[in-house]
Amino acid sequence: MAHDVRIVTEAELRRVIGLDRGLVDVIEKAFAALAGEGVVMPPILSMALEEANGEVDVKTAYLPGFDGFAIKVSPGFFDNPKLGLASLNGLMILFSARTGLVEALFLDNGYLTDIRTAAAGAVAARHLAPKEVETAAVLGTGVQARLQMQAAHLERPFGRVLVWGRDADKAGTCASDLQEALGVEAEVVGDPAEAVARSQLVVTTTPAREPLVTAEMLHPGLHVTAMGSDQAGKNEVAAEALVAADLYVADRVAQCETAGELASARAKGLMTGLLPELGEVVTGAAAGRTSGDQVTICDLTGTGAQDTAIASHVAALLQGGATGTVIRA
Amino acid sequence: MAHDVRIVTEAELRRVIGLDRGLVDVIEKAFAALAGEGVVMPPILSMALEEANGEVDVKTAYLPGFDGFAIKVSPGFFDNPKLGLASLNGLMILFSARTGLVEALFLDNGYLTDIRTAAAGAVAARHLAPKEVETAAVLGTGVQARLQMQAAHLERPFGRVLVWGRDADKAGTCASDLQEALGVEAEVVGDPAEAVARSQLVVTTTPAREPLVTAEMLHPGLHVTAMGSDQAGKNEVAAEALVAADLYVADRVAQCETAGELASARAKGLMTGLLPELGEVVTGAAAGRTSGDQVTICDLTGTGAQDTAIASHVAALLQGGATGTVIRA
Repeated sequence: MAHDVRIVTEAELRRVIGLDRGLVDVIEKAFAALAGEGVVMPPILSMALEEANGEVDVKTAYLPGFDGFAIKVSPGFFDNPKLGLASLNGLMILFSARTGLVEALFLDNGYLTDIRTAAAGAVAARHLAPKEVETAAVLGTGVQARLQMQAAHLERPFGRVLVWGRDADKAGTCASDLQEALGVEAEVVGDPAEAVARSQLVVTTTPAREPLVTAEMLHPGLHVTAMGSDQAGKNEVAAEALVAADLYVADRVAQCETAGELASARAKGLMTGLLPELGEVVTGAAAGRTSGDQVTICDLTGTGAQDTAIASHVAALLQGGATGTVIRA
Repeated sequence: MAHDVRIVTEAELRRVIGLDRGLVDVIEKAFAALAGEGVVMPPILSMALEEANGEVDVKTAYLPGFDGFAIKVSPGFFDNPKLGLASLNGLMILFSARTGLVEALFLDNGYLTDIRTAAAGAVAARHLAPKEVETAAVLGTGVQARLQMQAAHLERPFGRVLVWGRDADKAGTCASDLQEALGVEAEVVGDPAEAVARSQLVVTTTPAREPLVTAEMLHPGLHVTAMGSDQAGKNEVAAEALVAADLYVADRVAQCETAGELASARAKGLMTGLLPELGEVVTGAAAGRTSGDQVTICDLTGTGAQDTAIASHVAALLQGGATGTVIRA
């Protein structure tokens, strides 16, 4: 009965995996698998701890062709910064898809989630952004603002980035960080409208509850990836903008209609038809961008499929090596 | 950001915690908390892996007054015995309810689940079984058959145990194991009817899909705990028996009506009124057994509250000690 479990910390993980095109390929494969037969991805388990201003989400997915499946636990405790702690934490557990035995524990404090989330943005850019992007913009100034611009830059090596945030100081820091990390010109802009107007690729990374991107802001040759909304009530892109776009793509319709941009549209009785998913665009079952002047929008809520894919990938990278601690359980 | 995570294996856990009245008190407190205000217990996340004849369940609960909450992952892979592995496995993760940080990982392979499940049977016996139990019976011959009789014996020290199982050899082994463990007379019986007829306390521990206990078998002064059903389609006690009993008690009505004995009754349009929960019986908000000749039935599906309670209890037992491996994550 006893079996070996490999336990790997955030510091150890950071040494073996980062946000690069290899990871984007891995996450692209996860989306392709999601579009195929035999996938099992249950609804997200979510629990609110109101007293602590916290919530915890659990995601998982079984993908045919993967030897393991991940269960990912993401606590978000939003008073933590007052205690000098990060708001987001958590871990991933990799199980054998054949026996259900625990194979590895990734005590990543949310690191793997951060990079697999950014990699999904890169997959969206790969299939939906205009071929040429001179200027990209990001709304929001946190970890994902930085990572999403790094991810987009892997696929569309733009020369200028515009940053908008409610807090101008934080926007300034984010802009200079991006300038240094990507070697691009970076500029803080005064409002979302200017950011969108001057860009071909926009990523929204905020917890906004009132839309930042409206239908009026859309212009030919624009791609928007909205990744900030992950629960009912959050809304970064106006319902009318989803309708006005030439193409709306969900990471998973069943999630986007309850937790993504689609939720607000559905609440208004809009966007009720059959909608394509990113995996279908990856496999070619649905069309992606077909011309340079289209407006495309991708709605990312984060899927258990990405967790299973990155956890399996990390396990393969570590196989046979000495990284981490092995415990006989 | 880095913080210490204590990792404890099954073998280490078995040395610090077992099935005793102290644990029954802990689990009784969990049920009491479930009956109070401020509990958050989301629906169970469940994923089937049909190719591997497997399933995985994730349970959690936040209980006010507890410093931590557990997330428990229970894989059940029913072809594992062909590979020389146990069907049931899993782990529990204990998080701080204040910060969401991982505090401990219990790589218990299902051991903590086994004993917290048995302890719930003891809580049911404590509040619902007749004061005097001479003969107890168990339907089923697996791990829970043994543990449930040990648990019942803590509360009602019966002198004879009857064992029924579909496989007479396994029933014989289970009976001799119980005879040795409890120092009681043990006897294999030929059918569930005989087991029920001769007993004052019956525990059903099977994956039956057709009821084993029918209304006709009920007799004055009988208590039945049904703990085998944990998903739709399983059914150990006939709907008509639930109706005929003087008192039906659920561990959690919202779970029993989809995964417990109550599900089959509800499908027949029976048992549709307000029903008491075990925690309400514990706190006195609902009546338990009020006379020796009543027939009582308790429906146990297993709650995240029990996981949070036992994980918190184990963490307290280990505090300051050297058990397990501490990893700085």
